[in-house]
Amino acid sequence: MDKNEKHKIKAQKQKQKVDANVAKAQIERGIMLVITGKGKGKSTAGFGTVCRAVGHGYKAAVVQFIKGKWDCGERDLLEQHGVPFAVMGTGFTWETQNRETDIAAAENVWQQAKKFLADPDIHLVLLDEMTYMLGYDYLNKDEVLSAIANRPENQSVVVTGRGAITELKDMADTVSEIKDVKHAFREGIKARKGVDW
Amino acid sequence: MDKNEKHKIKAQKQKQKVDANVAKAQIERGIMLVITGKGKGKSTAGFGTVCRAVGHGYKAAVVQFIKGKWDCGERDLLEQHGVPFAVMGTGFTWETQNRETDIAAAENVWQQAKKFLADPDIHLVLLDEMTYMLGYDYLNKDEVLSAIANRPENQSVVVTGRGAITELKDMADTVSEIKDVKHAFREGIKARKGVDW
Repeated sequence: MDKNEKHKIKAQKQKQKVDANVAKAQIERGIMLVITGKGKGKSTAGFGTVCRAVGHGYKAAVVQFIKGKWDCGERDLLEQHGVPFAVMGTGFTWETQNRETDIAAAENVWQQAKKFLADPDIHLVLLDEMTYMLGYDYLNKDEVLSAIANRPENQSVVVTGRGAITELKDMADTVSEIKDVKHAFREGIKARKGVDW
Repeated sequence: MDKNEKHKIKAQKQKQKVDANVAKAQIERGIMLVITGKGKGKSTAGFGTVCRAVGHGYKAAVVQFIKGKWDCGERDLLEQHGVPFAVMGTGFTWETQNRETDIAAAENVWQQAKKFLADPDIHLVLLDEMTYMLGYDYLNKDEVLSAIANRPENQSVVVTGRGAITELKDMADTVSEIKDVKHAFREGIKARKGVDW
């Protein structure tokens, strides 16, 4: 049997397996994704998902914790498509150095997040970098978890950021943990416009 | 010392560390990112990066290996912004079950990829799901690696897909490996339009 025939038999077996799994997955509802870990790609995976939803004509909304002080390519693009952004806009905690104003800013943007999480017209909500808000105790954990759990049935939600707390991962349908194998920054390469921000 | 003062001192120390690292990272050039692993988020991270580049007004190009047979939200959105797509369009190997036509389709789309990788006007090239082409020996490894290595200095490239070969990871500036901690599909939840595709 040559390489091409072997390939065909292997592919046929794999198709049976895949088809059986697809047949088993029949529940249709919005899902909750958590994208955590130290590696690069968490926020971009979140924004890629927003881009996907918007491309299909669905309504999506973005809440950015931490970030928002600087010029951000994905925001410029998605706002053109009517995606509302709620932005904490403080920058990193080591920039603000002020726990009280950080908490006030987090609370403020959370009020908008709650509205998105209650709106059945929104297909997808991205809570970018939200993990830190729970890790630092900037937001009330129970309130956040319950707003996510009680969102409309067809709404999906993506939460990104390092160090997602166990409760977030437990309630998620999909959890991806991005391992930082290697990073350009540690090799002395400057963060790049159009790639890193 | 209260919680807020403690926070401030910790944040100041962290800022010194971060600033020192930022000062050390002074090389400015295009970077190569590999996003691999079995977890969800590889392609969306790639498309999120494209969205970022396009939002800043940069030219980006996308090459999709494997995928492209079905309606795809990110493509619909990015094509509106002038992003060229080269699409293999065969679907998964277990769908085609034909090694020879797969290889011909891979070769065909690779010709377009080479043009993108030689164009200094393109800020970012996404080679989505390209890892499989090397893993299956569908494309000539040396040719692919050398086209990436010899791309214009200011061009960045993102390669996604499971099982990136060692040579790809070795030449990359940034490598993220996405661990599949949990996946909705295995819990019986159907792949969702506007999230999974």
